[in-house]
Amino acid sequence: MTPPSPRILIVGGVAAGMSAASRARRLNPDAHVTVFDRGEYVSYGACGLPYVLGGDVPRFGEEGWDALVARTPGQMRARGVGVRLRHEVTGIDAGAGTLSVLDRDAGRTLTEPYDRLLLATGVSALRPDWAQTELGGVHVLRDIPDAQAIEASLKGARRAAVVGGGYIGIELTEALRSRGLSVVLLEQAPEIAGRALDTAYRRRVREELERGGVDVRCGVSVEGLTGKAGRVTGVQTSDGLVRADLVIVAVGIRPNVELARAAGVRLGKTGAVAVNTRQETNVAGIYAAGDNTEAVHRVTRRRVHVPLGLSANRMGRVAGVNMAGGDATFPGIVGTAIFKCFGLGAARTGLTQAEADALGLKALSVDVESTDHAGYYKGAQPIHVRLTGEVGTGRLLGAQLVGSPGSVKRVDVVAALLGQRADVEALFAADLAYAPPFSGVWDVLLVAADQLRREL
Amino acid sequence: MTPPSPRILIVGGVAAGMSAASRARRLNPDAHVTVFDRGEYVSYGACGLPYVLGGDVPRFGEEGWDALVARTPGQMRARGVGVRLRHEVTGIDAGAGTLSVLDRDAGRTLTEPYDRLLLATGVSALRPDWAQTELGGVHVLRDIPDAQAIEASLKGARRAAVVGGGYIGIELTEALRSRGLSVVLLEQAPEIAGRALDTAYRRRVREELERGGVDVRCGVSVEGLTGKAGRVTGVQTSDGLVRADLVIVAVGIRPNVELARAAGVRLGKTGAVAVNTRQETNVAGIYAAGDNTEAVHRVTRRRVHVPLGLSANRMGRVAGVNMAGGDATFPGIVGTAIFKCFGLGAARTGLTQAEADALGLKALSVDVESTDHAGYYKGAQPIHVRLTGEVGTGRLLGAQLVGSPGSVKRVDVVAALLGQRADVEALFAADLAYAPPFSGVWDVLLVAADQLRREL
Repeated sequence: MTPPSPRILIVGGVAAGMSAASRARRLNPDAHVTVFDRGEYVSYGACGLPYVLGGDVPRFGEEGWDALVARTPGQMRARGVGVRLRHEVTGIDAGAGTLSVLDRDAGRTLTEPYDRLLLATGVSALRPDWAQTELGGVHVLRDIPDAQAIEASLKGARRAAVVGGGYIGIELTEALRSRGLSVVLLEQAPEIAGRALDTAYRRRVREELERGGVDVRCGVSVEGLTGKAGRVTGVQTSDGLVRADLVIVAVGIRPNVELARAAGVRLGKTGAVAVNTRQETNVAGIYAAGDNTEAVHRVTRRRVHVPLGLSANRMGRVAGVNMAGGDATFPGIVGTAIFKCFGLGAARTGLTQAEADALGLKALSVDVESTDHAGYYKGAQPIHVRLTGEVGTGRLLGAQLVGSPGSVKRVDVVAALLGQRADVEALFAADLAYAPPFSGVWDVLLVAADQLRREL
Repeated sequence: MTPPSPRILIVGGVAAGMSAASRARRLNPDAHVTVFDRGEYVSYGACGLPYVLGGDVPRFGEEGWDALVARTPGQMRARGVGVRLRHEVTGIDAGAGTLSVLDRDAGRTLTEPYDRLLLATGVSALRPDWAQTELGGVHVLRDIPDAQAIEASLKGARRAAVVGGGYIGIELTEALRSRGLSVVLLEQAPEIAGRALDTAYRRRVREELERGGVDVRCGVSVEGLTGKAGRVTGVQTSDGLVRADLVIVAVGIRPNVELARAAGVRLGKTGAVAVNTRQETNVAGIYAAGDNTEAVHRVTRRRVHVPLGLSANRMGRVAGVNMAGGDATFPGIVGTAIFKCFGLGAARTGLTQAEADALGLKALSVDVESTDHAGYYKGAQPIHVRLTGEVGTGRLLGAQLVGSPGSVKRVDVVAALLGQRADVEALFAADLAYAPPFSGVWDVLLVAADQLRREL
């Protein structure tokens, strides 16, 4: 039972943590809700960081990062949520129901009792051995201080190397080009965009980067850095030396689970925190939400670790409701993601063909090229769609779209149907909107569904 | 039973007729498929006509209308489909299984036997008594000749009056403004956009027209026309004389059902041809498809008459498959529509609140204003969403969106879910795509669903 005036403590104040805090306090105004964050910024849109760097965000305030802040600590406090910045939670005593919290400014450790505890500790950027350096100009990007450090390194920088061609690497590459740098994008795998897209679709993204003046090198591994006078000067790779006065390390992330593990909270096979649909961990009173936490994939019914903004916010809300004594469940994800790359948008949902194959599903994909709106209407741009379904059952498994940025959000149609475990026929039967400025009479999704249903 | 080499005759060669012809012939290469059309153009995108007039379609060929033509008669013939232009079907002898066809050039009537007959006769534009005139410069817009006549009238025209503020009236109004005319839009109802949208959303469209320099006058009825030397000079209205040297009559349409009625084909309550899900009429061997035909509304399960491009194409395909001996069914519609108006897009699906009320459903709507992408990302535009659900059951009933043209196609997410008879919770649980250039972290549809589910 939740006490009438529970003490709700939250570790981490970005997407999941702040969503939970707001929701808990709204549901139960008697709850004592406090958020601890080891940093200086809370409640901001981390997904916007590359765009601030790229100049796509009109800036407010001296530092310019305020634009990303959804609510200031003052605004949270006005809503009855305590916010303690520069407070690092160093330990959990689950038996006693207390946290050890290091006040970094005062240099002392507090003991804070809780009735409900949320671990919203997020992820950290991986730093391979070669990136463990004192050299200036080498950065990862996870939070506002990281972005501020990149901004500082941009002054006078002319050549950048971005290591890692995932979403963040791609977004940062575009940002650095927008700032006038020459950019080499280094990717260890044979193609960029990681496991996000099947090969042919990754290649389109790569071509767009190249059209944007980026030197994309795939199949290249990084062996070390070179430096001079404390500043990075290049990246040593299997393909030779790449000169760079700014290096971004975007090779992946890992969930921040040290606190959880030490408290006896069970981790899943993915390495992230395991929870039930109420965001409860195996330890009574301890919840987890956000990028550090697993989710159920509604297509495969497996537990996955896909840290993305909407899921983090949604998990946080669910945790907040439940910690405050309500009852909410997280529906799971279907693996939807979207990113922009210069004049191209790319989106995916469900499973790629490669992912379905790896799971042993009998999957089939069709590829369709069409235009984002009626071919005869001005400005029509190509759009490429891969639709994947299950042989035998006819079930929809996933979609990938690459096209003009304005056209690829139609991935949401497939995402919504995946949540219903709908079949390809259901997509084909959908009464989608048509007028020449918006789509062809047969939207490209319908064209793909028609072809796939006949081949399944 | 379908004969092995059936004679399939099709009356009307635009969307439904040509879709049926192509599909029938592809499914059964032994079928004899012939399309009769009383006009000179077949297989063209009629929805594109306002955009050709407005200059939004790059033109090919002397007349410029070729851009809208999906397949020429020659291309259809190469696919084994006979196409007879300027051939008007004047009667059906359902007992004998024959058509009477007037060859307008030769001036003689042929008798054509059929095994399967498709009525794809479309709709006609209504011409009220006041519009039954010999005056030049007064037009409706249904087909390419209508558009060509408007194009001819545009020469030297300076002032236009568009009578009727439905989709076509709005699209033509924009087109005429693009061509440099001053335009008065006259609407009898208190607001434009007919029954497409609830009142507040219609008003936004009206305001956009006004921002585009259009003089919009609602609650005004037309009483007659004035003319001089055989040309229209104005419209006499309940609000006084509106001077105009070009008048577009866009007050509505009616299904072309004379042939059907004379042949004993049953019409529905809507006045359009009644069919089953295989597009069969009550008369053996006679099918109907397209704008002249009713469809089942999947939300209300009632028969409706909503003539739109996708439905016409889809019905045509279904009829084509079945006439050729296959088995296909039309899934019905959910009432999706979309239109552009200067810098605004408007879309709807399912039921409006007013429509739900009129049907006696216990419906509730929420209205949400957000931005089409992350508010901090450059170029964010407002988007207004109304989401409607059923009290008690929680079922999703419909959505209306008004926002930037690039943002309103997300209506398709709701359209797809309506086809699944999904509830508002299912929309709220959808894993929609998020990145700052594409949407807020909570897409406006999720924001609306969250609010609606809590109020239902």
